[in-house]
Amino acid sequence: MALRARALYDFNSENPGEVSVKENEILTLYSEQDIEGWLEGVNSKGERGLFPASYVEILRNDATSTFNNNSCTTSGDTYPDSRYPQQNKIENFSKPSPPGFNAFPPPALQRQPPQQQQQQQHTYQSPGQVSDDDWDDDWDDSSTVADEPGTVGGRYHDYEGNGPSTYRVSTSSMSRGNAQQAKSSATVSRNLNRFSTFVKSGGEAFVLGEASGFVKDGDKICVVMGQYGPEWQENPYPFTCAIDDPTKQTKFKGMKSYISYKLTPTHTQNQVNRRYKHFDWLYARLVEKFPVISVPHIPEKQATGRFEEDFISKRRKGLIWWMNHMTSHPVLARCDVFQHFLTCNSADEKAWKQGKRKAEKDEMVGANFFLTISTPASPLDFQEVESKIDGFKTFTKRMDDSTLQLNATVNEFARKQISGFKKEYQKVGMSFKVLSQAFEMDQQVYSTGLNQAISFTGDAYEAIGEYFAEQPSKDLDPIMDLLALYQGHLANYPDIIHVQKGALTKVKESQKHVEEGKMDRAQAEGINERCNIISCATLAEIQHFHQIRVRDFKAQMQHYLQQQISFFQKITGKLEEALQKYDNA
Amino acid sequence: MALRARALYDFNSENPGEVSVKENEILTLYSEQDIEGWLEGVNSKGERGLFPASYVEILRNDATSTFNNNSCTTSGDTYPDSRYPQQNKIENFSKPSPPGFNAFPPPALQRQPPQQQQQQQHTYQSPGQVSDDDWDDDWDDSSTVADEPGTVGGRYHDYEGNGPSTYRVSTSSMSRGNAQQAKSSATVSRNLNRFSTFVKSGGEAFVLGEASGFVKDGDKICVVMGQYGPEWQENPYPFTCAIDDPTKQTKFKGMKSYISYKLTPTHTQNQVNRRYKHFDWLYARLVEKFPVISVPHIPEKQATGRFEEDFISKRRKGLIWWMNHMTSHPVLARCDVFQHFLTCNSADEKAWKQGKRKAEKDEMVGANFFLTISTPASPLDFQEVESKIDGFKTFTKRMDDSTLQLNATVNEFARKQISGFKKEYQKVGMSFKVLSQAFEMDQQVYSTGLNQAISFTGDAYEAIGEYFAEQPSKDLDPIMDLLALYQGHLANYPDIIHVQKGALTKVKESQKHVEEGKMDRAQAEGINERCNIISCATLAEIQHFHQIRVRDFKAQMQHYLQQQISFFQKITGKLEEALQKYDNA
Repeated sequence: MALRARALYDFNSENPGEVSVKENEILTLYSEQDIEGWLEGVNSKGERGLFPASYVEILRNDATSTFNNNSCTTSGDTYPDSRYPQQNKIENFSKPSPPGFNAFPPPALQRQPPQQQQQQQHTYQSPGQVSDDDWDDDWDDSSTVADEPGTVGGRYHDYEGNGPSTYRVSTSSMSRGNAQQAKSSATVSRNLNRFSTFVKSGGEAFVLGEASGFVKDGDKICVVMGQYGPEWQENPYPFTCAIDDPTKQTKFKGMKSYISYKLTPTHTQNQVNRRYKHFDWLYARLVEKFPVISVPHIPEKQATGRFEEDFISKRRKGLIWWMNHMTSHPVLARCDVFQHFLTCNSADEKAWKQGKRKAEKDEMVGANFFLTISTPASPLDFQEVESKIDGFKTFTKRMDDSTLQLNATVNEFARKQISGFKKEYQKVGMSFKVLSQAFEMDQQVYSTGLNQAISFTGDAYEAIGEYFAEQPSKDLDPIMDLLALYQGHLANYPDIIHVQKGALTKVKESQKHVEEGKMDRAQAEGINERCNIISCATLAEIQHFHQIRVRDFKAQMQHYLQQQISFFQKITGKLEEALQKYDNA
Repeated sequence: MALRARALYDFNSENPGEVSVKENEILTLYSEQDIEGWLEGVNSKGERGLFPASYVEILRNDATSTFNNNSCTTSGDTYPDSRYPQQNKIENFSKPSPPGFNAFPPPALQRQPPQQQQQQQHTYQSPGQVSDDDWDDDWDDSSTVADEPGTVGGRYHDYEGNGPSTYRVSTSSMSRGNAQQAKSSATVSRNLNRFSTFVKSGGEAFVLGEASGFVKDGDKICVVMGQYGPEWQENPYPFTCAIDDPTKQTKFKGMKSYISYKLTPTHTQNQVNRRYKHFDWLYARLVEKFPVISVPHIPEKQATGRFEEDFISKRRKGLIWWMNHMTSHPVLARCDVFQHFLTCNSADEKAWKQGKRKAEKDEMVGANFFLTISTPASPLDFQEVESKIDGFKTFTKRMDDSTLQLNATVNEFARKQISGFKKEYQKVGMSFKVLSQAFEMDQQVYSTGLNQAISFTGDAYEAIGEYFAEQPSKDLDPIMDLLALYQGHLANYPDIIHVQKGALTKVKESQKHVEEGKMDRAQAEGINERCNIISCATLAEIQHFHQIRVRDFKAQMQHYLQQQISFFQKITGKLEEALQKYDNA
């Protein structure tokens, strides 16, 4: 029987090899095993090609039989819709990039399926793919759609206990939570929604005092009271990291190819080589470790054209942006797994695997992460915190809308310059050329100078057309790169805010319980204290966000304007050159 | 019975009040009397409006009865198609402006009906309109389509002897020609096509020695041998003439309105007031007087919106260009009718009318004009002349094509700047503004400077959008004005070349006749001499054309580039201002 799927959303093909699908269109698949989040199949028009796995649902006659498949699929059928509370949808206000949004020049924002995918997404993951043995055998970028960084919400949406989970953070923190549930949940109610971010991030478990672990001195993370409120203690040893010379490498006698990036951190000055899959692995570790830190998204995956120069250059730029945000972050920059990634010599396979296993077995993730945080002496005023968080929520919504709009405008502006503007200037240039050619037939000696000057003017306008076409890569593309990065952060914040709000709700509940005599003051005090930790961390993260935002947008706007000024000066120079030709004409 | 007409060509309405018609569409007319070359009627879709009279032929059941009409129409029925030789069409290679060509900004080229109009055009002229009495009673611009300057060929296409003609030149020269026909036409054949330009301009009559008249010293026109061949003797008293302050005047207690222009020639420094109809009258006099001089076309007529500021300003610019070409021309600048126009005080009605009558009764027009020309001592080599003329013919064809193309390109470029370019820059500006507004919600003191700088950048891009929209009136419009003027000249040259070629053909015929013993040498020598005069005048006119062309295009290209440079400098300045805002952000 042919394997079939139904399209959940419209998908417009943008690259060779892709095929467009319409919502509700029935597709025939070649395999239910996706390749980097893409499935191959034939649409109803008979066109064959790739489409995002997350845009379709596989149609099965027998849902239970799938558990016996090699691919061990947790398909949509095992997630009845009724189990996904609307609340979660409302909380998650971050708008996804519309499909086709970045059709031009190279797409700068990560390609995200429509918003609902967080609830309806399918994970096609074979258990073998998480094993260590697979680490080096796999081809570049070969992780599955489930941990694709673009699908932000995915990290919280595994299904507890039902089949193998790809997210260690959730299972580990939840299992701890479940174990301790009996002793503390009698007095403060638990969220009924076990899939809420608050629960799954470990936030609830921590607030309810269920997290425990030994915090080494090196793991301590300090929130200090700064000029504008709580902030992360600055990294006393700031560093940056260059990413150079992406080169194509092969192994298995050329059977497998991948791109290797040279990373040189300033604090070690030792170059290490890393592949995209290493970045991807690191990203997954960071996301599971830090519940209220906005981990910058790594550049999107791409199924086809991974070895094309444009793509490699674009990905490198994306990784540089990402690295810049990583090294700028006081907490992320210092964390063990990132340091391992930056400093471990990849030739020393044993050391690398040791660090890798250590990171994957890190206990201080999720709920336990909060244990590592030390806060300023005086606790925060929760009312003030709530108002700040609400203000920030409104802010992120507005910023998300405006960056989306700016991205669309800039994208279109770049497209117009490359096509229309160039064409118009070159048409003018061509017409001047044609006029000068007509004038050359006049057989008059005294018009030679004029004819040459007009011909030069024609060339000048052709050149100006080229200037317009070349310009976007110098000024608009960097803006789009910046916006893509911030779109990633903005997509992270709903979950971060959700965790803080969950903690605050527990505080309110505990106060009520104390008033009603159902809880003793000490226990409520503990909830207060832990909510204070979460709030300090959240506000510190927000403060950090604002600081890098102001830094990045200032720098990028200056760069943009400087480029624009050079551009118009170059045009002026060309025209002045043309004008001079008339002096002796 | 309803008056009906058939459309001869497609006409696309461009302005309010006009109605589109399709070739062969049957139209119902309100009146066969046109208003400034426009007829009012209803098309087959029932749309009512104006269309050019020259684009339609009036359908009549009884052609002869029209002679009893007040309007004394010489309709298409009296010109059977078979009487229009194809030869004439082929000679006349000047391409008409395609309808709709100048839809934007204000149309710069004169609106010409398709090429064939020269053969098929109808003249709706009431005899009353040529009387002196009508001169001041008529409303502005009220002459008919027959002498509309845009319809270039019209000046040669009256119908000899059949009903009243509006063209004195043709009737006078032809009647002279007819009178003398008996004595000279026995040996050299006459053109069978009595409507050919060669015949109607008086060229044939002159070559055959049929022109005669008393040439006063003041009428003498010298062709001298210059560096590059025959040229008009320079005007020893060069002058220019300013055209200022078009003002709206009324008469008949406000019943009639017209626009009056203030003309101040430098050689008199006396201001005179002239209306468009005076220019129009002058233009008609010049066209009938000078068969091989390219009289610059006056700006096109317009039925509606004549008192709108844009139109008045545009017409004034057109008249300034026209005046510049008139005063630059060694022959036109000095001729009596132009001097009368420039110097006669319009308040002195008697003097004005005297000069007007004198000009209208000028004997030295058409064939007789050639009598006034004195040539260099040594006659031209006709083979060389023929090669030069052929070269110029090719040149005008190429120049016509290239100026048409340039005009279309520039027109579209202007449209794009006013619409698309402006929109793109303003959309970018708006997106920056929206971003700055979103950022203003961040409640962070340290980002105030950045927010203001981004907001200023948004304003800067909005301003730049305006700059783009304003620019075409400064640089592209003048180019279109120039091209319009030259399109007019290029439309004149086929007829001028035709006259010279006709003369050369007569020379060849006469040589053959001499060889065959059918003509005596003295007679052939006379034809040779007169062909030499026509050739000298034609080459002098071509030389003048090249000189003003090089002068005008050089000046206009310099002006264009200077404007473009200022434009891009203005943009750069605005961007530098924006960039500075980030210094303290």
